[in-house]
Amino acid sequence: MNYILKGENAIYYECGFSSDNALFLSLENYNFFITDSRYTYEAKLYVKDAQVVDGEKDLVKKAREIIRSAKIKKLIYDPMEWSVDEYEKLSKLNISFTKKPNFSQKKRIIKSDLEINIIKSAVFLGAKAFSEFETILKNSIGKSEKELNFIMQNTLKDFGKYDLSFDPIVALDENSALPHALPTDKLLKNDSLVLVDAGLKYKRYCSDRTRTYINKKDKKQQKIYDIVKKAHDEALKFAKAGVKASDIDKKAREVIEKEGYGKFFIHSTGHGVGLDIHELPVISPKSDNVIEENMVFTIEPGIYLEGEFGIRYENMVVIKNSKAEIL
Amino acid sequence: MNYILKGENAIYYECGFSSDNALFLSLENYNFFITDSRYTYEAKLYVKDAQVVDGEKDLVKKAREIIRSAKIKKLIYDPMEWSVDEYEKLSKLNISFTKKPNFSQKKRIIKSDLEINIIKSAVFLGAKAFSEFETILKNSIGKSEKELNFIMQNTLKDFGKYDLSFDPIVALDENSALPHALPTDKLLKNDSLVLVDAGLKYKRYCSDRTRTYINKKDKKQQKIYDIVKKAHDEALKFAKAGVKASDIDKKAREVIEKEGYGKFFIHSTGHGVGLDIHELPVISPKSDNVIEENMVFTIEPGIYLEGEFGIRYENMVVIKNSKAEIL
Repeated sequence: MNYILKGENAIYYECGFSSDNALFLSLENYNFFITDSRYTYEAKLYVKDAQVVDGEKDLVKKAREIIRSAKIKKLIYDPMEWSVDEYEKLSKLNISFTKKPNFSQKKRIIKSDLEINIIKSAVFLGAKAFSEFETILKNSIGKSEKELNFIMQNTLKDFGKYDLSFDPIVALDENSALPHALPTDKLLKNDSLVLVDAGLKYKRYCSDRTRTYINKKDKKQQKIYDIVKKAHDEALKFAKAGVKASDIDKKAREVIEKEGYGKFFIHSTGHGVGLDIHELPVISPKSDNVIEENMVFTIEPGIYLEGEFGIRYENMVVIKNSKAEIL
Repeated sequence: MNYILKGENAIYYECGFSSDNALFLSLENYNFFITDSRYTYEAKLYVKDAQVVDGEKDLVKKAREIIRSAKIKKLIYDPMEWSVDEYEKLSKLNISFTKKPNFSQKKRIIKSDLEINIIKSAVFLGAKAFSEFETILKNSIGKSEKELNFIMQNTLKDFGKYDLSFDPIVALDENSALPHALPTDKLLKNDSLVLVDAGLKYKRYCSDRTRTYINKKDKKQQKIYDIVKKAHDEALKFAKAGVKASDIDKKAREVIEKEGYGKFFIHSTGHGVGLDIHELPVISPKSDNVIEENMVFTIEPGIYLEGEFGIRYENMVVIKNSKAEIL
């Protein structure tokens, strides 16, 4: 099997290193890591099991040269990784190209025990940042969403030790009803609802977690919170090796629908997590994934009431001994 | 002229808003901003001069529907913006597609005076962060590159007010010889050379600046610094409306070559800056851009001595009254 990869995490998975300008070619028994002169020095130190090649100003041209001299006939590529423009340059070759969408993510859908250990550390550190942030929140009345977002970023980064999995969401009151709210100048009040969705990277693997801190005196918030939490718990209990991912989604969705809030659960129940923050399996109504041992994914139902508030509850889970365990 | 855009900044330029999942369609006199339900609420508040359309789970399908009902015959797209996979879905239409690489960046190559004012503010705030960081550096002996990088990020962000143009580079001693060094645990010493390349975004427009703080007692460092600075100054003096971008690169390169360090200047002399950190014009040996009034770009020659140190000096300039002015 011959294949070419372009994605930074796809390449890292193969050889333990990558850069923002690199190609990885796997041809029969030879692997090549092609990058430009800015990265060849570090690549030679860190790339495992592949030859480092300086592709100079044109990595795709270098890849074509290597492919030509290897005299292969078929090459797999991921049409989601290549722009029309770059693929046109790559495909100036007298060989046949096989399109495999999500090629690398499919390889990565089952995590090794080593990867699971790294992910456990990422989740542990992410949860630690959440509990630190909770303490800070108590003394932050009057701070803006923008400031709170900045504080959460720094809490996750722990003086530059970790990168973020994604820009965190810290959304107050009505803004929490926007599942991907951008931070505004809105201020934290004494009785504000606060939705926090955030994660960090440990050894390049992502964590992902959401908590919503409600005003416990507000009966509607408490009611919605309980429904969302129940949807999460039912999905968690149901998730095991052998079930369809779409049925996990259905399980969570049914809890919310039964309470009459079905149309306010406007996203999927979850997604795989690994080197990418969104990986396989997809936990959605249309997913064709079947759950297997050592898969890692989120369970994150939510209810969003425009103009009022939104509540989401999210954990990452791993399938071990055929059951879903919270990480 | 009918066109479709996919890039976040390309879309922002057209209508003053964008999201990480959006398409922009400009058909004769009708403009459409297509996004998913997570963003339609904000889009309706902020999008100017375009109709907001909820593309639900499949924005490309929605774009096809709009294109079909508009009965147009030709559509411009940028083959660098579209993956093979997505373009295949878009092109299921009985119309002709015209490929225009860098379509949006070409529209954006000449900045308006309003854009230049915003960029001036970005550069001013970026330079302010540099001078604050210089003060901090003096009391940072023993801190690691990772910590210094984190401090520079926070200095730029100013308590969450600004986003970064890119992850800053703070490279010490030998690491500065890697033009895109990743931060390590290497510690700042009393006599360390420190290379800092960083920028922030103000109203979405980027700043970009590099300074190298040398050990002034080290004669070799001082000599290389002077050559790099001279290359910068000569390129700046030469840059004006009507000259070829490639000749600006040549001017800087000649200074460095004359001193025998030509092969250690391993990148281009500069690049345009705007909504994207890398835009047109390209200031490189192969560039076909010609400099015009109101273009904004960097001048950033460098010399990199592997195992020793690297020195780069970078400013952003604007062409005004046909001359290059440092911003």
